[in-house]
Amino acid sequence: MPSTVLANQPSADGPVPSRGTRSLSLEKPFSFYRGGVLPRLEISYESWGTLNAARDNAVLIFSGLSANAHVATSVCDPQPGWWEYMLGPGKPLDTNRHYVICVNSLGSCYGSTGPASIDPATGRPYGPDFPRLSVEDIAAAGRELLRALGLRRLSAMVGASLGGMSALAFALQTPEMLDRLVLISSAAHPSAHAIAMRSLQREIVRADPAWADGRYTAPGPVDGMRLARKLGISCYRSPEEWEQRFGHRRASAHSAADQFEVESYLAHNASKFALGFDANAYLALSRAMDDFDAADHGDGELDAALARLGGLEALVIGVRTDTLFPESQQRALADGLRRAGARVRYAGLDSPQGHDAFLIDEPRFAPVMRDFFAADAG
Amino acid sequence: MPSTVLANQPSADGPVPSRGTRSLSLEKPFSFYRGGVLPRLEISYESWGTLNAARDNAVLIFSGLSANAHVATSVCDPQPGWWEYMLGPGKPLDTNRHYVICVNSLGSCYGSTGPASIDPATGRPYGPDFPRLSVEDIAAAGRELLRALGLRRLSAMVGASLGGMSALAFALQTPEMLDRLVLISSAAHPSAHAIAMRSLQREIVRADPAWADGRYTAPGPVDGMRLARKLGISCYRSPEEWEQRFGHRRASAHSAADQFEVESYLAHNASKFALGFDANAYLALSRAMDDFDAADHGDGELDAALARLGGLEALVIGVRTDTLFPESQQRALADGLRRAGARVRYAGLDSPQGHDAFLIDEPRFAPVMRDFFAADAG
Repeated sequence: MPSTVLANQPSADGPVPSRGTRSLSLEKPFSFYRGGVLPRLEISYESWGTLNAARDNAVLIFSGLSANAHVATSVCDPQPGWWEYMLGPGKPLDTNRHYVICVNSLGSCYGSTGPASIDPATGRPYGPDFPRLSVEDIAAAGRELLRALGLRRLSAMVGASLGGMSALAFALQTPEMLDRLVLISSAAHPSAHAIAMRSLQREIVRADPAWADGRYTAPGPVDGMRLARKLGISCYRSPEEWEQRFGHRRASAHSAADQFEVESYLAHNASKFALGFDANAYLALSRAMDDFDAADHGDGELDAALARLGGLEALVIGVRTDTLFPESQQRALADGLRRAGARVRYAGLDSPQGHDAFLIDEPRFAPVMRDFFAADAG
Repeated sequence: MPSTVLANQPSADGPVPSRGTRSLSLEKPFSFYRGGVLPRLEISYESWGTLNAARDNAVLIFSGLSANAHVATSVCDPQPGWWEYMLGPGKPLDTNRHYVICVNSLGSCYGSTGPASIDPATGRPYGPDFPRLSVEDIAAAGRELLRALGLRRLSAMVGASLGGMSALAFALQTPEMLDRLVLISSAAHPSAHAIAMRSLQREIVRADPAWADGRYTAPGPVDGMRLARKLGISCYRSPEEWEQRFGHRRASAHSAADQFEVESYLAHNASKFALGFDANAYLALSRAMDDFDAADHGDGELDAALARLGGLEALVIGVRTDTLFPESQQRALADGLRRAGARVRYAGLDSPQGHDAFLIDEPRFAPVMRDFFAADAG
C-alpha cells in the first residue's frame, strides 16, 4: 500500500529537492500513458496550510518544466520559493484558508522518480530507458499523491506552462476530482514555434559528445544543457523586455570576452541550470510537452474533450508578450471551456516578461488570482 | 591597379558563387575597420541591365548574411535568384532602366574574399586568422567595386537585413556617393534579442568538436552549422506563419522519427545550408551584425550620424511580424532620417513571414518598391 514518508534531505535518486520536500513512496506498479511500467515511484511534494475538517480546501499546483515543489517559504524550508508572492498567509493563494500542495512532476529530478532515479533492476539510473513520459503521466502521479493523502476532491487545481498542461490533463481524465481550474500561459497543444524551439533544445543536448546516447556519467552533457537552456530562457522572456533591460550595451567596456549584457545574463542563468538539472529529465519533460494534445481525450476533437469540463469554474490567464504559449492559445482554451458550459474568467495581461511573466509580474497576476480565490471567501 | 576579371566558374577561394558571378581582383592592401590588413581581395558580384551614357542609373544591392550575389536570372546564369520577383525587365527594380549590381559581402564564401579564402602567406585558408569583420568593411568592399567599375555615384542603394546595415554604413561613410537609400528589415544597431539569437548560433557552431577552434578541415562543423541554421531559420520566420503552415501536425503518421512537420521543415532547410556555407564566414558575418552601431559614425549619437544623410531620398520598410529586426527599429530609422532632413517614405507591412518576408511576400513588397523606383521614371 502507498505510504507517506517525510524526507528532509535529498532522496537517493533526485539531486536537489527543497529541504521542505516530502516524499511519497508508491509501492505498486505505475503504467505510463504511452506504454511502459515502473515497479514503484517516489512522488515528492510540499504543502502549506492545513486541511480543514470538511476536507474541502485542498489546492494542487503542478509546476513548470524546470521547477521543484518549493513554491514558497514553508515551515521546513524558509528559503523563498519560485512563486513566493503568490502563496502564503494573506497572499492570493491564502494558506490561512487553503491547504496547498505542489507536486514535483514525475520525470523531473527534484525528488520524484525520473530518468536519473536508480532502476532497482540494474542498480543504475534509468537514463534513456525511462518509459516515454507524457503529460498524462505527470497528472496521474499527482492523482496518486492525492489518493495517498486521502484527498478525493480538490477545491482547485493550478498550473502554469507545463503545469497548466498537467492540470488540464488531470481535469480531462478525472473532472469529478476538482471544482476549479486555473490555467496560466498554457495550451491545449503546443504551437509550431514551441515545438521547433523545444526540438532544437533537445537536439543541442544530444549534440554534446558527453550526452553519450543518454548513458552519461556525472556531470553529464553540461555544455549542451547550458546552450539548450540559453535558448530556453530566450523563449521564456520577450524581445521587448530584453530591449529595455539590455539593449545593445556591452557587459563591460574592458571585458576580455567583449560580451554584450544580454550574453552575460544568459551565460549566468544557463550555467546555474546546466549543473543542477538532469539532461534525460530535461529531454523527457520537453518532449512530453510537444506530445501533449488535449484533443486526444476527445477522439481528436478538442471540443469533445473539453465537454467533460462543463461543471468547472475556470480561470485562464494569458500574456500578450508570450511567444511560446501565445495569448491566442489561452483565448482558445477559455473559449473552448465556455462552449463546454464552464464558468470561465479570462485575463489577458499586458506583462512585458513573456512566458515567464507569472513568476515575476506580481502587480498584474496577484489581483487576478486573489479575486478568483476570494470568490469563495464569503 | 584594380582590374576586373570575368569568371564564369567558382573562384579558387570561394565554394559556390553563382555561374553568373564576376570577380574583381583588388590588388592592393585592404585595411579593416577594426584593424587588420589583407594584401589583396577578390570581390565577386553580378550585374543586370546597362549603364547609361550619363552613368547615372546604377543601383547597388547589398545582400543578407547567407545570400550570394545572384539576385535574379541573368544572361550568364538562367537559374532563379534569391529576389527573382524584384529584379528584371519590367520588375520593381526594372533592368530596362537601371544598371543593377549586387556585391557578395566581404567575409562571405560566395566568391568574395572571406575566412575560407587561401592566405597567400601560408597557402592555407585564413580561417580564424581572418581580420575581425565589420559591416563597415562590407560597405568598403562595395565601394572598391564601384571605383573599379568607374562608378562615382549611385542612383540608389538597396539592402535588406545585414544588407541594410551594409547600405547604411556605406551611406554614413560616403553620403555623396548616392541619391537614394532603401533599407528593408534592417537596423541602426542590433536588438538585445537579435544579439542573443546570433550569439547562441555562434556558440552552437563552436560547440561542435569538428569546429576545432576554426581550423577545421572539410566539411567542417556540419552538425553545429545545421543546428545553428535551424535556430537562424526559426528567427527568420514568424510563430504565426508557422502555426498556419505546420500547426502541431506530425510529418507522417508512420514516421520512424516521429517528427512534427515543423521539425522536418527545419531539418531539410538547415542541412542544405550547413553543407554549403563556411563556418568561419558564418561566424564572422554574424558577429559583424552584432557589432554594428550606426551611432559610431556620430560619436555615439545616432542622430549626429544620420545628420549626414539629410540630402537623401529614403525608403524604409518594416514588417509587423519580424522579431529579429522588429518594426520598431525600422520606424526609428525612418524617424531619424526624417529628423536629419531626408525625404523619407515609410512602409510598415503586414506580412506574416517575419524577417524573411522581403524574400517571399511579392504582393506587399513589389508595389512599395515599384512606386519608389517609378518616381524617377518621368
